[in-house]
Amino acid sequence: MSGDFSAWQRAVQAQMEQTLKNFLPALEHEPKVLHEAMHYAVLDGGKRVRPLLVYAAGELFDANADAMARAAAAVEMIHAYSLVHDDMPCMDDDDLRRGKATVHKKYDEATALLVGDALQAQAFLVLAEGTVEASRKVAMLSRLAQAAGSHGMCGGQAIDCAAVGQALTLQELEHMHNLKTGALLEAAVMLGAWAGKTLLAAESLALHAYSQAIGLAFQVVDDILDATADSATLGKTAGKDAAHNKPTYVSLLGLDASLALAEKLRQDAHSALLPFGDGATRLRELADLIVQRKA
Amino acid sequence: MSGDFSAWQRAVQAQMEQTLKNFLPALEHEPKVLHEAMHYAVLDGGKRVRPLLVYAAGELFDANADAMARAAAAVEMIHAYSLVHDDMPCMDDDDLRRGKATVHKKYDEATALLVGDALQAQAFLVLAEGTVEASRKVAMLSRLAQAAGSHGMCGGQAIDCAAVGQALTLQELEHMHNLKTGALLEAAVMLGAWAGKTLLAAESLALHAYSQAIGLAFQVVDDILDATADSATLGKTAGKDAAHNKPTYVSLLGLDASLALAEKLRQDAHSALLPFGDGATRLRELADLIVQRKA
Repeated sequence: MSGDFSAWQRAVQAQMEQTLKNFLPALEHEPKVLHEAMHYAVLDGGKRVRPLLVYAAGELFDANADAMARAAAAVEMIHAYSLVHDDMPCMDDDDLRRGKATVHKKYDEATALLVGDALQAQAFLVLAEGTVEASRKVAMLSRLAQAAGSHGMCGGQAIDCAAVGQALTLQELEHMHNLKTGALLEAAVMLGAWAGKTLLAAESLALHAYSQAIGLAFQVVDDILDATADSATLGKTAGKDAAHNKPTYVSLLGLDASLALAEKLRQDAHSALLPFGDGATRLRELADLIVQRKA
Repeated sequence: MSGDFSAWQRAVQAQMEQTLKNFLPALEHEPKVLHEAMHYAVLDGGKRVRPLLVYAAGELFDANADAMARAAAAVEMIHAYSLVHDDMPCMDDDDLRRGKATVHKKYDEATALLVGDALQAQAFLVLAEGTVEASRKVAMLSRLAQAAGSHGMCGGQAIDCAAVGQALTLQELEHMHNLKTGALLEAAVMLGAWAGKTLLAAESLALHAYSQAIGLAFQVVDDILDATADSATLGKTAGKDAAHNKPTYVSLLGLDASLALAEKLRQDAHSALLPFGDGATRLRELADLIVQRKA
């Protein structure tokens, strides 16, 4: 896909909705309530930042459509499951997500627990059943598992839980977000690229640097938005971090320095992409989107 | 390993303890509480029925040690995560498991949720990083994901939750257990076999028939034990099904017919293994163990 970024973004988002629907268990299969709740948790919402990253990186390396679709769906299912579990009463206890009732409010806690568990398994299934050559597919599965597990997203969430009410240093905050959000964003970029080909070491390093920058920028901007936007714009409860006494970039650095940091990270992301030339335009535009978004 | 079954069983169990420890995230790595809780959830407990099945099937096809160890650890981590989540207050609300405090009692609910989530990811990671040739490895990962997801274990758990206080037919009860327990037991057999080689269709069918029989037998015997044994022997709360008004084989068939069914399924399992001759002795002995166990 070429041309204007917003048109590309809308096209990927629309296609993802259909792709996710296709790769979720069919609604007419038992257990129907579980499958309905899985669809509720995944479809019709979200900015699809991770799928956009998969497609942007995949198109850079001429990945085929099925490989990109599966990688994007798998990463998004992992993300969606984490939101369902994070919203549960024992975790963040949130009633609102993407402007809709959270899964445990719409259904019940047992269903939310199982929806998350089943979505994680489904993510690995969707990726495993693709047409990518087996050795690359194994690398993609391994990377997704690392990004999702205790040295990635789950580990970051554990550190986040333990940090409520604690004074974190900037370094500790960065480490936490690197695991909690950064690992899966980087997996999105890497899986997209691997959907196209086996990467050279230099290509991996450049994409790693890009991913680190946008991962951190993503969280800095999240903190800025949590402190400055309202719930209706965000589609989730605003001001939650301050209310829960959670350390954030804004609480540690102040608003102005946080805005400056986000801009610096955007430029770092651009610099990392220099070796790829014009092919990386979408990845550059996504760095801009991540920093300039309003929700 | 050859010779006496109990010696073989003890050797595999002892080896699994070390294998699981090696394949879990190291205790000295952050986040330490999460990793400690993951070790607590997996180590020092359980009959290791699924690893025994992996090894019995693996040895039938001369699988190498690393391949069997990884398959066994992966299946056992999926099983262990499901116990952690099933014990949570929103699900079965159980305080005791394998004679120890459940994870959410020993730690807290948020930790239990993350322990389960991280163990599932770790299972796929351990399997993905093995030395089995890539195409067989992808088949193993795909099968594990199917067995764990909404058409397997999670789906069975969802049907089980919905069935509390409901009158199920024998067929519905069988379908529920087939997903909830049978799918992962069968995955253990299949992953063990695939750790050795790509199966012929006839071999797959025979192992499928064996797995179906032992899967069902496993649950019939569980129901018999829940109705007849005490909590100290079981290492978990006995009489729970009746207390929760859950349909069981004993409540539907009565105790005598349940005992007869278990014995018939044991014989079915033996019959299914006839094509494999003496090589399948361990699988035969495991069918006996599953039916004749006292806890």
